[in-house]
Amino acid sequence: MRWSSAAKPSAVKINEKASREKILTLESMNPQVKAVEYAVRGPIVLKAGEIEKELRKGIKKPFTEVIKANIGDAHAMGQRPITFLRQVVALCTYPNLLDSPSFPEDAKKRARRILQGCGGNSLGSYTASQGINCIREDVASYIERRDGGVPADPDNIYLTTGASDGISAILKILISGGGKSRTGVMIPIPQYPLYSAAISELDAIQVNYYLDEENCWALNVNELRRALNEAKAYCNPKVLCIINPGNPTGQVQNRKCIEDVIHFAWEEKLFLLADEVYQDNVYSEGCQFHSFKKILYEMGPEYYNNVELASFHSTSKGYMGECGYRGGYMEVINLHPEIKGQLIKLLSVRLCPPVSGQAAMDIVVNPPVPGEESYAQFIKEKESVLNNLAKKAKLTEDLFNKIPGVHCNPLQGAMYAFPRIFIPSKAIEEAKAHKMAPDMFYCMKLLEETGICVVPGSGFGQREGTYHFRMTILPPVEKLKILLEKVKDFHIKFLEKYA
Amino acid sequence: MRWSSAAKPSAVKINEKASREKILTLESMNPQVKAVEYAVRGPIVLKAGEIEKELRKGIKKPFTEVIKANIGDAHAMGQRPITFLRQVVALCTYPNLLDSPSFPEDAKKRARRILQGCGGNSLGSYTASQGINCIREDVASYIERRDGGVPADPDNIYLTTGASDGISAILKILISGGGKSRTGVMIPIPQYPLYSAAISELDAIQVNYYLDEENCWALNVNELRRALNEAKAYCNPKVLCIINPGNPTGQVQNRKCIEDVIHFAWEEKLFLLADEVYQDNVYSEGCQFHSFKKILYEMGPEYYNNVELASFHSTSKGYMGECGYRGGYMEVINLHPEIKGQLIKLLSVRLCPPVSGQAAMDIVVNPPVPGEESYAQFIKEKESVLNNLAKKAKLTEDLFNKIPGVHCNPLQGAMYAFPRIFIPSKAIEEAKAHKMAPDMFYCMKLLEETGICVVPGSGFGQREGTYHFRMTILPPVEKLKILLEKVKDFHIKFLEKYA
Repeated sequence: MRWSSAAKPSAVKINEKASREKILTLESMNPQVKAVEYAVRGPIVLKAGEIEKELRKGIKKPFTEVIKANIGDAHAMGQRPITFLRQVVALCTYPNLLDSPSFPEDAKKRARRILQGCGGNSLGSYTASQGINCIREDVASYIERRDGGVPADPDNIYLTTGASDGISAILKILISGGGKSRTGVMIPIPQYPLYSAAISELDAIQVNYYLDEENCWALNVNELRRALNEAKAYCNPKVLCIINPGNPTGQVQNRKCIEDVIHFAWEEKLFLLADEVYQDNVYSEGCQFHSFKKILYEMGPEYYNNVELASFHSTSKGYMGECGYRGGYMEVINLHPEIKGQLIKLLSVRLCPPVSGQAAMDIVVNPPVPGEESYAQFIKEKESVLNNLAKKAKLTEDLFNKIPGVHCNPLQGAMYAFPRIFIPSKAIEEAKAHKMAPDMFYCMKLLEETGICVVPGSGFGQREGTYHFRMTILPPVEKLKILLEKVKDFHIKFLEKYA
Repeated sequence: MRWSSAAKPSAVKINEKASREKILTLESMNPQVKAVEYAVRGPIVLKAGEIEKELRKGIKKPFTEVIKANIGDAHAMGQRPITFLRQVVALCTYPNLLDSPSFPEDAKKRARRILQGCGGNSLGSYTASQGINCIREDVASYIERRDGGVPADPDNIYLTTGASDGISAILKILISGGGKSRTGVMIPIPQYPLYSAAISELDAIQVNYYLDEENCWALNVNELRRALNEAKAYCNPKVLCIINPGNPTGQVQNRKCIEDVIHFAWEEKLFLLADEVYQDNVYSEGCQFHSFKKILYEMGPEYYNNVELASFHSTSKGYMGECGYRGGYMEVINLHPEIKGQLIKLLSVRLCPPVSGQAAMDIVVNPPVPGEESYAQFIKEKESVLNNLAKKAKLTEDLFNKIPGVHCNPLQGAMYAFPRIFIPSKAIEEAKAHKMAPDMFYCMKLLEETGICVVPGSGFGQREGTYHFRMTILPPVEKLKILLEKVKDFHIKFLEKYA
């Protein structure tokens, strides 16, 4: 009997009535979760989804497609996967392919090694909560190579479900105290909103330090000190988060800046979180990625024996752009042994990171080397992505700076532009009448008139009275050019309209 | 220059001294995280890991391998993946294989459909936070088929990172209030420790209701009422969690019991969480899986228009045992529209569930059908796993019940035995001297003497003065027999030693 044909009589006789009041409502729900904001997938993205639906229904718009430039989602923008990475993951997924002549030996070698690290040689087994041993060993070797020989210990590596999972886990352990002793977490403004969201969820205190827009979004230690000293009046600042290369701001920190930050953390007893997921995305001449770990070690034993540091990497960015695999790792330095136990316990509740994501992470840290069959193609693919990104970074900066009322700092790294936009006071008034932040109003108009979806600066934080938006530079060059021209035309019209 | 050859002089001159006090310690850490316990991967599993290391070093033990019967990890126990599932995921991973004649057409068809749902046709793109549309549609169709036509709406389906992720997310939204208004969460005892861990982490109040061991671990509504009424004195009980089929207890709830529970939840205004990850794992004659959703609808509109329900499923259990993919889904009924928005916001912070796990989930809900090329092999593989599990469930029950001082209820479903063990008072005293729960002491001895790793009942909760352990029935039949014989010999010796 199909349910729809005749409902079974109820076991208990009751009067039918309309739907009664819910148990779970905005009023009764967890207020910390209610306070969470996450702009990268916020109201503007929901609106973009609605517009896409309307387009599919044939409703006429001044454009034919929505371009989602709101998120660093490389493959969605047409970037092709790195062949070698996918070959290895496919071999691990379906080991019958290990007998296929269409797969190169070096990919098979890696797949066999990963499978040997899996229970029952299957990606379908749970792994240790910290991740597969041999992959953690590969991560440690990668870090040693990257950092010119600074030692890395696989026991300090935790594979994670994307970098976000590691950042959330370590913050979760760090937050404690009530009232004025509640843990304060220092974050850059502008920031990546995972930080503010995690801080809300954990009911911790967000302590803002401002990046210096006039100085290419540099981090200034005097500003760190100001923020810290003010925060001490109302909380216990215990954590300092750094995003390098910056998201959404794209700056790449120089060695001196990192030394200053580490010294500051040492002096003020702050736990350092270094979000280094864009470590492969550095474009500007004269800029170079330095890991916090490396600089910490170079500063000598007083620092590297004491400063507590967690740093994060991911499969989602760089040249691979494998966001969907949710691969990542965290390296911890000077974590108290008892806390390591606590961290493993906490991670074990979610059992283990997705194993195909762990496999993808392995290929990021253990790619083909010279002499291996797949090396040439791998390098070609990698460099093609990175060279293109460098080209697009420059193109975007140049084009934005040609628009009146727009200023864009150099995109030294990462994969976003975060231009400052002038919004006329008449537009600000109209935004207020709509109960919108002025840059949200601007971005909504941009979306409605051009189909381009970008995220308002207010979702990342910005100095009072300044307005920005974040846009990825991931679309293919030709498409990016069209997109930038459209933004230009929109902006000029916007200025005219609200002059 | 290699770092190891010569450390760069520090930028700031300071006196070298020994490692100073840490910022993050057991005293300063988040007390809620400290309070979390997770027995399935707890101290006994860490001990098992140590013993494995010793065995690898050649240290002699009374056994040659550790058997990890602590966790439902099918592939690690030798179960083979379902071929069709892996073929589809491999095709999605490396779409060049879509041209390969070695893959069946029905697998290719599904892979193409999944890829069309992915940005840029790549598993490497982020998906909507709620999961890929077409997979949520497949989940809804699956639920309709399973529940005899009860309607399911893809908008009510959320793909998750295993079932644990969904359970944690919905609990996170539900917890609020302070002091006596703090949310109480009713959980069965014995329970799966994800629940107690999530409750600790969220600083909610755990409200225990006891399953009736004398009556095959049945759930009794009078006991629910007792627990609820007592809890009202110290918290605001708002959530009722059900695990059916039971973990660790293996009971399968009958229709009458589910009706009673739903009526109770309706009457007492409780939000229902139905953990139904073992829905394919039902073995005993006369037992059948009924989903809470189906019974809710059969009880009539007063119920199905009002009772708020979230139910959970996973790729990890059933016949596929794909734990490593971290696939799962949650279906919500009567969730307030504003809360749906809040849930999507919360989920969006972790971006999206792993996409290969979403693909694996799709195959679980959309397997080959009669007439398709892969149907025969699929059914053969599926039935082989399930028939074997049914055989092992019976074998385990029978063998345990032959051991003096051991009583084991029928394993009606799921994949564990949870036998009650008699522990002599002399052993209880010795356990106390070691500051161990008596069943932890027992399980540690079992591990040290036989290499068999099981989880003490105290990790799941049990009535005061009773002792149990949880053991999976996943090892292959021949190995399981040897394992059960070893447990028997150990138990008899244990009784003799502490008589």
